[in-house]
Order: sequence, then C-alpha cells, then structure tokens
Amino acid sequence: TQNYRITLLPGDGIGPEIMAVTVEALKKLGAQFDLSFEFVTALIGGSAIDATGSPLPEATLETCRQSDSVLLAAIGGYKWDNVPRAQRPETGLLGLRSGLQLFANLRPATILPQLADASSLKREVVEGVDIMVVRELTGGIYFGAPKGLFTTEAGEQRGVNTMGYTVTEIDRIAKVAFETAQKRQKKLCSVDKANVLEVSQLWRDRVNAMAPSYSDVEVTHMYVDNAAMQLVRNPKQFDTIVTGNLFGDILSDIAAMLTGSIGMLPSASLGADGPGVYEPVHGSAPDIAGQDKANPLAQVLSAAMMLRYDLNQPAAADALETAVMQVLDQGYRTGDIAAAGDQIVGCQAIGAALLKA
Amino acid sequence: TQNYRITLLPGDGIGPEIMAVTVEALKKLGAQFDLSFEFVTALIGGSAIDATGSPLPEATLETCRQSDSVLLAAIGGYKWDNVPRAQRPETGLLGLRSGLQLFANLRPATILPQLADASSLKREVVEGVDIMVVRELTGGIYFGAPKGLFTTEAGEQRGVNTMGYTVTEIDRIAKVAFETAQKRQKKLCSVDKANVLEVSQLWRDRVNAMAPSYSDVEVTHMYVDNAAMQLVRNPKQFDTIVTGNLFGDILSDIAAMLTGSIGMLPSASLGADGPGVYEPVHGSAPDIAGQDKANPLAQVLSAAMMLRYDLNQPAAADALETAVMQVLDQGYRTGDIAAAGDQIVGCQAIGAALLKA
Ligand SMILES: CC(C)[C@H](C(=O)O)[C@@H](O)C(=O)O
Ligand SMILES: CC(C)[C@H](C(=O)O)[C@@H](O)C(=O)O
Repeated sequence: TQNYRITLLPGDGIGPEIMAVTVEALKKLGAQFDLSFEFVTALIGGSAIDATGSPLPEATLETCRQSDSVLLAAIGGYKWDNVPRAQRPETGLLGLRSGLQLFANLRPATILPQLADASSLKREVVEGVDIMVVRELTGGIYFGAPKGLFTTEAGEQRGVNTMGYTVTEIDRIAKVAFETAQKRQKKLCSVDKANVLEVSQLWRDRVNAMAPSYSDVEVTHMYVDNAAMQLVRNPKQFDTIVTGNLFGDILSDIAAMLTGSIGMLPSASLGADGPGVYEPVHGSAPDIAGQDKANPLAQVLSAAMMLRYDLNQPAAADALETAVMQVLDQGYRTGDIAAAGDQIVGCQAIGAALLKA
Repeated sequence: TQNYRITLLPGDGIGPEIMAVTVEALKKLGAQFDLSFEFVTALIGGSAIDATGSPLPEATLETCRQSDSVLLAAIGGYKWDNVPRAQRPETGLLGLRSGLQLFANLRPATILPQLADASSLKREVVEGVDIMVVRELTGGIYFGAPKGLFTTEAGEQRGVNTMGYTVTEIDRIAKVAFETAQKRQKKLCSVDKANVLEVSQLWRDRVNAMAPSYSDVEVTHMYVDNAAMQLVRNPKQFDTIVTGNLFGDILSDIAAMLTGSIGMLPSASLGADGPGVYEPVHGSAPDIAGQDKANPLAQVLSAAMMLRYDLNQPAAADALETAVMQVLDQGYRTGDIAAAGDQIVGCQAIGAALLKA
C-alpha cells in the first residue's frame, strides 16, 4: 500500500460540502488502487480569520509543507468583503501561493460533450475546445514592489502596483508551458502586451530564446487584448496558452466561461518541489452554502489532477475522471449545469452516484 | 455655413481607402447640413516612420492641435513589427494620446440587428447588447514609471512596468463615465482588481466617493477576471463600464468581439479640451490593403461620433448613422461582415451606396 498525506483546506461557503464528497471518493478509490490517504484538515480564508484572526495561519502553511499534496476548496464570502487587506480571505490564498512557491497554475478548459449546450457560444464554435492555460502565479503585478498608496509631489494620493518579471521567473514558467504543450497538441501561444510593456518584451524574448530547445512545439505570440478576442471568436485555434499572473487571471476565466460549466473545472498550482495545490475554478458561492446545492465535480476533478501530477497515479486519476463522466452520462445534474427540463439533484446525491460509478 | 478644420490621419494598411470613403461621405453630408470641412492630411504610424523616421512627427501633433477634430484610420503592419520600440507605429499612437491628453476612450459595442448572426455567441445571448466601455487612456501601466529593463542585485535582468493612478486621474475619467451612464441606461459598472491591487482599491474608493453626486446612476463594482467572464456569459447585464487603461484595452476588445462584426465599430478618444480623435476599433489589416476589400463603415461611424461629440452636430451625426444602416438594410456587405450566401462588395461600392443613402 502506498501512503499519502493530504492536507484538506475546505475554506468557506460551499467548500466543506464539496470537500466531503471528494474525500469519500478518494477513500473508495484508494481501496481499489491500493492507496491509503491520511487526511489532515487545516484552516484558510474567512473561516481561518474567524478562528485565528489570520486568513492563513502559520500552522496551515506548515501542515501543507509536510504533506504530499493539498486539496483546496474555496475561500471568501460577503462577510469578509470589507475587512482590511491583510485580513482578507484572498490574502490567505496569495500567501499560500507564495508560501509554497506555486509558480505554475494549470487551468484546463474543456468542453464536455454532455454539456456542450451549456455554453453561451454557438455549439459549432465551442465543440471540441480543449485549452490549457499555464498561468504564472507567484510573480508579476500580484507581488511586485513598490506597491501601495503614495503621495505625489503635488500632494495628492497615487495608488501604485508594479508588474515585474525576472529572467528566472519567466524561464521556469515557460519551461512548464513548453513541456505541457509537448504532452498536448504541441502548440504554444504566449500572451503578453509587448507592443506597450517592457516587461512583456522581456517575456517574449525569453520565450523565443527557449523555443529552439523545444523544436517539436509550434510557438506563437499574441497580445492580450487580441487573445481575449480570439478566445471569444474562435477558441479552437488554441491548444496551450502561457502568460503572466494578471493576464492569466483574466484569460483563464474567459476560457473557463467558454465552456458554460465553470462548476466542472479543476485547476492545479505547482511549485518547483513540495506539494501542489488542487482546487476548483469556481468560488465559494456563499449564497448556496449549506443547502446541498453545490456541484462537487470540479473539486473531484481537482483531486484527479492531484493524483496525476503530485502523486503520480495516472490509473487512479483516469478512474476518477471516468466516474465523473459516468455520473454526467447518467443524467445527474446540479443546478449550475442543468439545462431546461433536466432533473436537478443535490451535492450529496452526486456524491452517492460517484461512489457507485 | 459652419466651418470645421479636420485633421485626417489615414495611417497604414487599409487606412487610406477607408478614410477616402469617409471624406466623401462627410462632404456630401456637409452640403446637406450647411457645414464645410477643411481637411488636412498628416502622417502617423508606419507611413510616418518611412517618410520621416518618426511614428509621430511633431508637425502631425501641431496640425492636430490646430484642428477642431481628428479622424484616425489605422496604424501598423508586419513591416514595422521588429523596429525598436521608440520607432514603432504603436509608439506614435501612444504619443498622440498623451500629446493631445486624450484621457477618455469611449468604445461602444452594439449588436446591429442586421448582423446579429455574425456573433460567435448564441443569438439570444447577444441580441440587444448595447455596451459603452469608458476606458482611461493616458494613465495606468501604459505610461507609469519606473519602466524598462533593470538588473537585479543578483545580476539578472528584470522587466518592469508600473500601474499607477492618481486621484485626479481617476476622478476625471469617473466623471466622464458617470455622465455617459446618465445619458444611457444609468447603470455604471466599475471594473478593477481591488482584491489584489492597491491602485485598484484607490480607484474603487474614488468611484464610490463620487457616486452620491450622481444619485440617478446605479453603481456596481466587478473584478476584471469576473467582468471578462460576465461579458461572455451574459453581456446584456452591462450598460456602461468604466475601467483603467489596461483592463479597458482587454474588456473593450471582448465587448467588440461579442458583436462578431468588429469591422463596424467606431471609437472616440476625448481630452479635457482640444480636439478628440475618432477611429475604428479594427486594425490596419495589411493583408487586404489596397485591394478594395476593406469595410469603411467603422471609419464612417467614427466620423458620426466626431460630429456628435466634437462638432456638436447631432442631426448630421444621426443622418450619417441612418445612412450606414440603410446600406446594411440594402444588403451591402464587405467580406468581414458577410454571412454564407451574401454577395460581397468592395470598399468603393459601399462608399457609393453610402453617398446614395
Ligand atoms: C481570489 C483572487 C485573488 C484570485 C486571483 O486573482 O488570482 C482568483 O481570481 C483566482 O484566479 O484564483
Ligand atoms: C495598438 C495598441 C498600443 C493599442 C492599445 O493597447 O491601446 C490598441 O490595442 C488599442 O486598443 O487601441
């Protein structure tokens, strides 16, 4: 039996519900694949603020560091929307990313045949879309200094943030992107704003400098405004996209929304070594928390990504993904992915169906 | 007779063709509305580089300053893609914006009933969409210092750009946005990334501080990643959007692409006083330049915006817009807006139909 220590960060809102379903699924899967999981639950986000005053207690970071992998559900809620920045749920998330050095965020956007009509785009435009956005996650304007409020010489307030990337930061994310593209359709589109920004010019130059080492990958460059447009116009032109933290935040959300079923999308955040963090793309949905209405499948698919990337158990990952597809094939739908006429079931019913599958 | 001095900046690619059609239309309109136009042509972009070495010769800026208004077509092309930054066509455009202090960029995205099927989104999602993006155009990360390539203490290269906004900069664009919303559906959505960026927090605070002075306008705030998603999911929820330079670059292009007919969209860039610059949203399309294939209607509609905003001739603006709609109603289509089965006509044929209308 292979043993794994997994930190669970259920967080806020619907987090605990979807995490519970995922844990049950992992246990069942473990029994089948001779894997045993030791689950340790830790605090993050709003619930951590309420319990400890901090959105990311040091103990949480320590627990994560001592794990093989981390499953995160979702953070935030109206309740903490107006607290000072240092105590916001988001600050805990950013602290987790930098604390574990999770510089590579992998965000797949795939149209599931069962849900192709869920998209706001025409079926023929989105059918078959399969995009992987590789987003840099610990640099850029999210973490650059100087930042804050300053007073100008004229005596007025000026808000400032700095978008900066070093060669090292660009090279390591580009490496992940090239290797990701190699495992996919071998098409890499690097997105920047090099016609205006010097930091983007360096980004573009580095990607170009690395391209010859990955001669099987076809590299293109696109400005971020055009990339956003092209995702809407013809998303099938994309295979793997690599971009910085801020542009990746925007583009990965557009790519996710193209599918029309954001409640189905997982993500992985990987570091150089140490555990990765696996979480759904959707938020904590405080409006439906505790009502057994949440869709747990993005969390479950995030666990599948964990099995694949952190635990190197591709067979178990495949089995989990296949089970999710079966649940969809059997017609089970939570409210977020239901079409007119579909019967809507709750989070627990999905969990039960998943265990059966 | 009212006299107007208009600077024409045909620029590169298809620019001269679409400008020629627009000038003919304005002349005809002038005869009907007792307006006389003095047109002065000046250099910008790639053609200015070729002629003078600079993408924005000082003489061009001077000519613009002495005009009542400026019509710009499009700049750029493969030919100048790899010249140093200071001599790029885009640098000329940025210089024009800062030189004329064009801090407010108005970018309407409207679905024309004649072209509703052109969108990649489902008809029911986009039908009736009518969005105005108010983008700050002379601040933010486009112009912030420090910027450039620096060497870190560890001796490696770091690219840096600075996103900064002062209270004055935010207040003046917010004022334009509130006033724009008042003339529309009175809904203003301010887009920022205040959960991460201090500059965005200041932006949000200022918009909130001004809101009581426009009590007839309903103000909401959205994070930029969510706004990009929501534009794709349900664009009809938006009326007027206000945002900074970089976010506005991205969001206005998404909004434009929702229409599926970017070849139809005009824009206005306005300063505190002095002339505004009116230009189509589309680019210089070097691949079809000089082939009589370009769609001149976005340029024509930009001239209509000029009549409305800079020259205060709403009746003439209405007449010009009505003529454009007639041309569409009569079935004239350039390649970019043609549906399967439509007969495709050239730029000049559209121009002739427009003069008739
Ligand atoms: C919550 C927020 C700080 C975060 C981000 O901007 O990175 C989120 O939008 C995401 O994409 O994970
Ligand atoms: C050409 C480029 C510099 C410009 C910008 O980024 O502002 C363009 O994308 C635009 O939106 O007008």
